[in-house]
Amino acid sequence: MRRWQRRAGETIFQHPLLSLERQRLSAGPGEERDALVLAAPDWVNVVPLLPDGRVVMVRQWRFGIAAPTLEVPGGIVDPGETAAAAAARELHEETGYRAATVRPLGAVTPNPAILANRCATFLATGLELEGAPQSGIDEELTVELVPLEDVPRRVRAGEIHHALVIAAFYLLSADG
Amino acid sequence: MRRWQRRAGETIFQHPLLSLERQRLSAGPGEERDALVLAAPDWVNVVPLLPDGRVVMVRQWRFGIAAPTLEVPGGIVDPGETAAAAAARELHEETGYRAATVRPLGAVTPNPAILANRCATFLATGLELEGAPQSGIDEELTVELVPLEDVPRRVRAGEIHHALVIAAFYLLSADG
Repeated sequence: MRRWQRRAGETIFQHPLLSLERQRLSAGPGEERDALVLAAPDWVNVVPLLPDGRVVMVRQWRFGIAAPTLEVPGGIVDPGETAAAAAARELHEETGYRAATVRPLGAVTPNPAILANRCATFLATGLELEGAPQSGIDEELTVELVPLEDVPRRVRAGEIHHALVIAAFYLLSADG
Repeated sequence: MRRWQRRAGETIFQHPLLSLERQRLSAGPGEERDALVLAAPDWVNVVPLLPDGRVVMVRQWRFGIAAPTLEVPGGIVDPGETAAAAAARELHEETGYRAATVRPLGAVTPNPAILANRCATFLATGLELEGAPQSGIDEELTVELVPLEDVPRRVRAGEIHHALVIAAFYLLSADG
């Protein structure tokens, strides 16, 4: 298999959340091609599990699809922050819960064909409610408690459809 | 929850595979914000399952992460093509297999925060090898047969990490 190396790049768009580059790649003499590559900070997802088996999920408006979604908490790893710290922070910001334990379940590549980043996934347990979700005009959230055993049915029904969230539940089910 | 409506858009980049738009959104009087939205054709994934319980997977170089991945076949739905037809076409192009049956398992949103498109997922059975994978310089593929029962372990080990592929296996496990 050819291993393509980046020889040059043209920045098409640059933004802290998402950048787009046209890369010139080479795999050896006479073997050249272009590729479009999106760069983004790493992302995290966290499955917050209550002792009664319910998952703390959030409903929010998503601009990509221009519709609301039902997801687990998640977001962007800030510069200098660990993925685990980002997971704990996003959990608290989006739901008001603090976790005694935030344990890694694995990491996925959101779309290795076009995106360079990774999404680390965590399980949060020992949850205590400490404050309310931080809703603003930019991120308006409603917390929803979903029994873990109902998740497969709700995925099948198309009520939970975010691929990274479904991958998080896969990692949880494959855990241990 | 505010329902944000697109009032105007500025095309930052346009390409048949991926376009980027800065949208001006409004949720009512005085409530305005921008959002970056990527548009792409819909995608498909197909889990090709052999009678002996092995999944026909493909190993290929992925430009986003500049590394090889292990995935199920998949790709882009061409204009005028149904998702099921695209799944059957990608299966044959990438592996050489034709399927007697291509059955929908559901659809996911690859990233509803920033991406407008969907990825439909199919199960392909009744497989017959009819030709070789169509490898070219643009898409160089190696077929690998993976027992379905080994998939959770290989996801856990980080050998299968593409979120859309993991979501496809979730949909298969939640099926029926």
